[in-house]
Amino acid sequence: MESKRVAAEKAVEYIRDGMVVGLGTGSTAYWAIQKLGKKIKGGLSIKAVATSINSENLAKELGIPLISISEAEEMDITIDGADEVDNEWNLIKGGGGALLREKIVASFSKELIIVVDESKKVSRLGKYPLPVEIVKFGHELTQKKLGKLGCIPKLRVVDNNPFITDNGNYIIDCDFGSIDQPKDLHSVINMIPGVVDNGLFIKIATKVIVGYRDGSILEL
Amino acid sequence: MESKRVAAEKAVEYIRDGMVVGLGTGSTAYWAIQKLGKKIKGGLSIKAVATSINSENLAKELGIPLISISEAEEMDITIDGADEVDNEWNLIKGGGGALLREKIVASFSKELIIVVDESKKVSRLGKYPLPVEIVKFGHELTQKKLGKLGCIPKLRVVDNNPFITDNGNYIIDCDFGSIDQPKDLHSVINMIPGVVDNGLFIKIATKVIVGYRDGSILEL
Repeated sequence: MESKRVAAEKAVEYIRDGMVVGLGTGSTAYWAIQKLGKKIKGGLSIKAVATSINSENLAKELGIPLISISEAEEMDITIDGADEVDNEWNLIKGGGGALLREKIVASFSKELIIVVDESKKVSRLGKYPLPVEIVKFGHELTQKKLGKLGCIPKLRVVDNNPFITDNGNYIIDCDFGSIDQPKDLHSVINMIPGVVDNGLFIKIATKVIVGYRDGSILEL
Repeated sequence: MESKRVAAEKAVEYIRDGMVVGLGTGSTAYWAIQKLGKKIKGGLSIKAVATSINSENLAKELGIPLISISEAEEMDITIDGADEVDNEWNLIKGGGGALLREKIVASFSKELIIVVDESKKVSRLGKYPLPVEIVKFGHELTQKKLGKLGCIPKLRVVDNNPFITDNGNYIIDCDFGSIDQPKDLHSVINMIPGVVDNGLFIKIATKVIVGYRDGSILEL
């Protein structure tokens, strides 16, 4: 917790009055949103765009002023977590199920600050199963097609039912073990009919902040 | 009508007992489904997978036995129309709004027979606006991003409301005027976060049947 919290709080220091801020989703983004709530009570004036219904609800509770992505047009900074970060700042995201909205918001952000604890730093992506968002129609066949790329694909299930994303789709968690060419894999997966998007974020992050168990942080 | 009907009926001649048949969507596929209904009354035994709720309803009316795409696993033949066909059999599809399911079904079909009237044969794609299926979240921004590719992008509207696909998404009709590199454009569009798929079908068709006003047909 502490390592996630310190990294997330560091990221919030980059937020200035008047900015439009993208709010990530997940256990690290949680701490950034908490800190942002405190700064707003202290007088900071920003507008925020949420990447999930969960983060939207949290922001509302904390009194963070929200606007829709359409009103925003562009985010100055988005702060979000990641499930894995490699040495070139390529990411696997989507463990929390919000990869698509996170990627849309990130793609309209001038800066994407990724905050992680030390366990997420890897030399090679792929130990963490790659989440792929797919449409329901033909999902069993799309899942098989993903398996032919060399992974073990599993439909994400919650309480014995398929997990449904905020966009009404399914998630297939694809265990590759190791991903040699993340950029190529990203394209190949997104070209499969039925795939909406996948959790690889290739060269989108503009800053990575790593938190350590001893409370120290490292900015990359 | 006549030119579409003769081409569609020719395509149905390729269907044999025991096949699993993908049913396209639109005014030409309509004639193929009608003919298939007659052949089934005459004793033909097949199973069909529909690419839209419209085609599913039509097939039901005509007594065509339907299975879900998941039960099918693979289609032997899919018969579908197109809005444009170029000399390399690349297609623009999606005028009817069913491009995603059509592409999923086509991608699991051994053969994709495209039936068109002569007006759809073009030397270069793009006069017909390219339909792009996108998620609702951030759709105004995604639409702007599509516009930066050199097209005039328009949200498809029906009765003053956004048209909703069978998958719960929006359609942006992108008027490019002329598409020089359909394969490249297809990739570029599908890599935009928020885009689910687009109406370019690149080298998927295995046969093209063109119907003419005088009732003649040409098989390519």
